[in-house]
Amino acid sequence: MLPKKAEIVEVSPRDGIQNEKTILTLDAKISLIDRAIAAGAKRIEVTSFVNPNKVPQMADAEQVAAALPRGKARYIGLALNRRGFDRALAAGLDEVNFAVVLSETFSRRNQGMSTDDGIALWHEVARAAEGRIGAGMTLAAAFGCPFEGEMPIPRMMAVLERALEVPPAELTLADTIGVASPADITARVGAVRERWPELPIRLHLHNTRNTGFANAWAGILSGVTAFDASLGGVGGCPFAPRATGNVATEDLAYMLHRAGIDTGWDVERAAEAARWLEAQLGHEVPGMVMKAGSFPPAALAS
Amino acid sequence: MLPKKAEIVEVSPRDGIQNEKTILTLDAKISLIDRAIAAGAKRIEVTSFVNPNKVPQMADAEQVAAALPRGKARYIGLALNRRGFDRALAAGLDEVNFAVVLSETFSRRNQGMSTDDGIALWHEVARAAEGRIGAGMTLAAAFGCPFEGEMPIPRMMAVLERALEVPPAELTLADTIGVASPADITARVGAVRERWPELPIRLHLHNTRNTGFANAWAGILSGVTAFDASLGGVGGCPFAPRATGNVATEDLAYMLHRAGIDTGWDVERAAEAARWLEAQLGHEVPGMVMKAGSFPPAALAS
Repeated sequence: MLPKKAEIVEVSPRDGIQNEKTILTLDAKISLIDRAIAAGAKRIEVTSFVNPNKVPQMADAEQVAAALPRGKARYIGLALNRRGFDRALAAGLDEVNFAVVLSETFSRRNQGMSTDDGIALWHEVARAAEGRIGAGMTLAAAFGCPFEGEMPIPRMMAVLERALEVPPAELTLADTIGVASPADITARVGAVRERWPELPIRLHLHNTRNTGFANAWAGILSGVTAFDASLGGVGGCPFAPRATGNVATEDLAYMLHRAGIDTGWDVERAAEAARWLEAQLGHEVPGMVMKAGSFPPAALAS
Repeated sequence: MLPKKAEIVEVSPRDGIQNEKTILTLDAKISLIDRAIAAGAKRIEVTSFVNPNKVPQMADAEQVAAALPRGKARYIGLALNRRGFDRALAAGLDEVNFAVVLSETFSRRNQGMSTDDGIALWHEVARAAEGRIGAGMTLAAAFGCPFEGEMPIPRMMAVLERALEVPPAELTLADTIGVASPADITARVGAVRERWPELPIRLHLHNTRNTGFANAWAGILSGVTAFDASLGGVGGCPFAPRATGNVATEDLAYMLHRAGIDTGWDVERAAEAARWLEAQLGHEVPGMVMKAGSFPPAALAS
């Protein structure tokens, strides 16, 4: 049985643009967030609190936070360490999204720490967050690592077993480098849901190898109703080779709406926002509905 | 339970290039077919027997047929009318794929005849084919029409009820303009399988709105194990506005292999063939694995 509703968390202001060479102005970032809200976003990952020398696009995290149209959506900030968490807290965001990396090599390269240290830090920030800010956890590289290859399910479950000693408000399983197949989604979501039946699960999917939307569909069939996506399918991780493109918000909304699952987004307005973002970035982006148009065309819709 | 195997029918020499402005030479077309076979193709739609004034790319259909490396794969030719069927038969192909269009307007624009006349012609050619050439039927615009919009399931079933009075060796349900959602696949394949449990079903999917791979996955879950696809995701119908891109062969093979479903294709060789085709066409094509690479990389694969 399909769900009636699903949630799309807009991540274009963070994962979507962090790897772009064109640094968007603060005004452009706020305009992007405004446009996402106007198109239906209720929850937005607006920035990451990371080292500006490593991710120059995110150097204005505090300014973005200060300029947010408060009360219009829930705002999430990504943090990879304690300092990032403290900054997100001080910036007054609604939620912090703390990333723990399943792959040891990827964790050391991206986070500068071991997976174990990442787990310990998650426990620390999750406790520090209590009563002050919502705290979600993303398990990054949960489906594969560019340096180590496959991430077996028992390894994922062992890491989660320790990490979830302090449970997050929501667990996001991230296919950071876009290698998962829908069968992987079914197996991993199934394993997590069996072990932690009450834990809300979100999926963070990249369409790097054209499996992202099939993976979202497999997620829906496995009971997941929350997905990260970015307008236009922009995105990529600066430390994950070729990890291009989150699933496109408007394409995901199109697919789900056509399947009778409401997301609260307006596909046409989202496509319009994606075209605006494409113009800001100055290069073609991967979204498809923004080019082909929705269906049925408004003139034909019943 | 997932199937162990699935078949990918390569359609780049027909649907893949028919709408391209660059007319490929006969040599290039045969090289494309050779490369597809080297990468794992066992069945290939090699050309269409249509009016060369309307589809100049297919003007050399007889020459392509005469130059095929016989015995290396099963070769399919598309026909839209009696003359096309007679040409496919005379050219000595293994199978003719005859298209009947569900949408009345689309049928008149693309085929120059009503859906009813298309059904009558199908009966005629299917009977003429008996004992001489394999005859499959494609129901085009089975999920939606650019001119009429939605194609309700009862309408689809009514057309099939009459068309299948003379049953095809295989029925292909075509999302000609790339509008289907995976829920549509589940519903339509389910309806057909319930009514004709023994009829082999193939899916012809376009990724126009990024739903193609999710639709293939929904097909797998509905028991379909045969799919049309094109190297590099090239494709489009000259008379279907913006109907760009079949699902990419190498991306579909990647997704299925990662899910434990063998296709007989070699993803790396298919990606290489896709890059070669891209160079022939002189513009970027939509395939993703050909850009991102397969996973895990050979150096990491266990």
